[in-house]
Amino acid sequence: MISLQKARDIIRKETPVLPSERVELFRSLDRVLAEDIKAAFDMPPFDRAAMDGYAVNAVDTRGAGARSPVVLKMCGEIPAGAVVAKIAWRKAGQASPPRREGKWPEKGSATSIMTGAVLPVNCDSVVKIEETEEFTENQEKKVRIFKEVEPGRDISLRGEDLKKGETILKKGRIVTPAALAMLAYLGRKEVKVFRKPEVAIVATGDEIKKVGERLLVGQIYNSNSYGIYGQVLTSGGNPYLLGIARDNPASLSRFIKKGLEYDMLIMSGGVSAGKYDLVVGILEKMGVKMLFWKVAVKPGKPVFFGQKGKTVVFGLPGYPVSSYLCFEILTTFAFAKMLGRNKPEKFKIEAVLEKELKNPEDRDSFIRVKIVWRNNRYFAIPYPTQKSGVLRSLTESDGIAHLKRRETKKENEKIMVEVFEGGVRS
Amino acid sequence: MISLQKARDIIRKETPVLPSERVELFRSLDRVLAEDIKAAFDMPPFDRAAMDGYAVNAVDTRGAGARSPVVLKMCGEIPAGAVVAKIAWRKAGQASPPRREGKWPEKGSATSIMTGAVLPVNCDSVVKIEETEEFTENQEKKVRIFKEVEPGRDISLRGEDLKKGETILKKGRIVTPAALAMLAYLGRKEVKVFRKPEVAIVATGDEIKKVGERLLVGQIYNSNSYGIYGQVLTSGGNPYLLGIARDNPASLSRFIKKGLEYDMLIMSGGVSAGKYDLVVGILEKMGVKMLFWKVAVKPGKPVFFGQKGKTVVFGLPGYPVSSYLCFEILTTFAFAKMLGRNKPEKFKIEAVLEKELKNPEDRDSFIRVKIVWRNNRYFAIPYPTQKSGVLRSLTESDGIAHLKRRETKKENEKIMVEVFEGGVRS
Repeated sequence: MISLQKARDIIRKETPVLPSERVELFRSLDRVLAEDIKAAFDMPPFDRAAMDGYAVNAVDTRGAGARSPVVLKMCGEIPAGAVVAKIAWRKAGQASPPRREGKWPEKGSATSIMTGAVLPVNCDSVVKIEETEEFTENQEKKVRIFKEVEPGRDISLRGEDLKKGETILKKGRIVTPAALAMLAYLGRKEVKVFRKPEVAIVATGDEIKKVGERLLVGQIYNSNSYGIYGQVLTSGGNPYLLGIARDNPASLSRFIKKGLEYDMLIMSGGVSAGKYDLVVGILEKMGVKMLFWKVAVKPGKPVFFGQKGKTVVFGLPGYPVSSYLCFEILTTFAFAKMLGRNKPEKFKIEAVLEKELKNPEDRDSFIRVKIVWRNNRYFAIPYPTQKSGVLRSLTESDGIAHLKRRETKKENEKIMVEVFEGGVRS
Repeated sequence: MISLQKARDIIRKETPVLPSERVELFRSLDRVLAEDIKAAFDMPPFDRAAMDGYAVNAVDTRGAGARSPVVLKMCGEIPAGAVVAKIAWRKAGQASPPRREGKWPEKGSATSIMTGAVLPVNCDSVVKIEETEEFTENQEKKVRIFKEVEPGRDISLRGEDLKKGETILKKGRIVTPAALAMLAYLGRKEVKVFRKPEVAIVATGDEIKKVGERLLVGQIYNSNSYGIYGQVLTSGGNPYLLGIARDNPASLSRFIKKGLEYDMLIMSGGVSAGKYDLVVGILEKMGVKMLFWKVAVKPGKPVFFGQKGKTVVFGLPGYPVSSYLCFEILTTFAFAKMLGRNKPEKFKIEAVLEKELKNPEDRDSFIRVKIVWRNNRYFAIPYPTQKSGVLRSLTESDGIAHLKRRETKKENEKIMVEVFEGGVRS
């Protein structure tokens, strides 16, 4: 029997990182980047107006006020998107700084400009439209400026957001919606991500029936496979339900053989020491190298981890709660490794414990708790029954409180709750 | 200009709840339940063994100890899944309590039993296998019991997890992996969920180019649509990128007409008061009733919300950060309503503010912060540049600190960070 920490270390060490693949931009959401994303150009790629208004030379607004406007000659208009240079600059190194052509403001003039438009040469600031008034004098368009601006006012400088060559998104991070926007912003049509783990799921047990079949006394439905199915998807893998193996060597061997064709094989049940717990023996007979079997945790002690070639194998306990929690506390680390994640820790929330928790045992214990926002703080409410057979302790919980061996957490003590993959959503 | 609270109230009030649909069990992951899920039977459906060992009558173990074992006659074996009654009990009301047939333990005998197997009649407890020893005497199988057990030891009582008729999962909750396992546990092949919102996404602006096209000076890529695409998926909708409308009535009308065929139309850009900001005018001309335009928030003031028939319309500002944040602080509430969510609040984390934040303005302000776990607590680190044009302030952040008008949050003060949809994943 090994410690949880040791078990996690072994998983991290022995699980291979999957190769990468190129995917279309919008297929990259929620995937893990397999390359550093660098800026191929400055962003903004040009100095630009940050407001609708008038591009000016700040010095020309000196002394302007609500009652003493400065009057400037109007000198054209630049809508956003107006192409003011003929040089394409898209590719790094391909472009020289854009030449600005056409009619540009002279000293003492103002150019109507839209948010996002290229700031004309000779201008260093923008006066917001609300602080101006256009008028015509002697058939000449002019504008009154009611406020003095300093150089740099309401403009965005080239490279203010991103500098060419800088790493903007790091290998190993998840493509969140914001990262997806960033990839588009940088003009990436495709992106390199780690391949998703292909995961075979096998339930075992003579008592397990397929959902929808008629149950006889003594039988239960195959719920573990569905829990694991959801957990695999939430962890970034592609799950495949291979079915239910029976408690005999022929059936188990058939399913295991199929399962070993995947990146990961997850079995539930049959890993204890009982007469009908044949899984570990057959896995070994089929060439799966045992890396650990039995971890000092409750629930979930008899969990198995092994490897054959590039396939890693988890044998999770058969109890619904044990199966689910072992996935959370162990299998998720294999996903993090396969997916090249740079942040494999579990997400935790600080919460006030509503009721004392005691772990009298000589192994780590995981208590299912609900997280409730009340009086401006989070409370952790342990589910009343913590037996491994009580599945409801999971659907009514948002995460787990981790108690080390013989540890006690007092009522009203602040504890860290490890949130289930997918966040607080119950 | 209305307050954020008022804007959210309007969205909650005016957005319709979508109808429900039945989906196959494993398609229900991450969907929102449109029905209360009740237990159709007790779970466990029978008293069962919680450990591998021997089913006994507790009274027969009285006085047993490590040095003074009690000896009991062996009386058969019950593996998990053994069908011990011929009555199918699956449907509620259909079954009488299972009759147990065959050879059952008499007083003073023990039955070998596996975890999960039906507890035989006349037995009220299980002695763990570790505390027993089988042997043969006079060709009769017997077992030594080394520990006295109390009635109820290591068994699970019928209905301990779920009671028939009880509501187990409530309408409005998300089907998490644990809830998926529960639905399987209850034998549900199908489940009623709210239909996913079908969402049209339209970018606007003459300066916006399709990702992959060649940019000329003054042009930028259509990043907003990809950010929104990711946000829609993360919020539970199906996104459709309709394309880029140009800043003229013909183009805008064409896109809006198409977009109004969806449950939701989200546009970005063209909602300010500039000369080329035509979106709001054209929406109204096309029969979209304005419900609000301009909210007292920064960034994102010019955000528009309207409705035509069953379609709701958001006009988000064109700046990447404003578009993204307006979706987070407003559009997510429309998704919660459409999807019948019973928990529409944003998920928040308490964190220590690393640097003073001041909101000098007369409207709510949203500051992008990174959440970092350090010295056993979370810190909120504001991104150095909070300008709306700096997209990187989003990819480097995990959520937003909400400052009310003229509010100051001090360095080292504890603040609540509203986490972006999808959780802390940067």
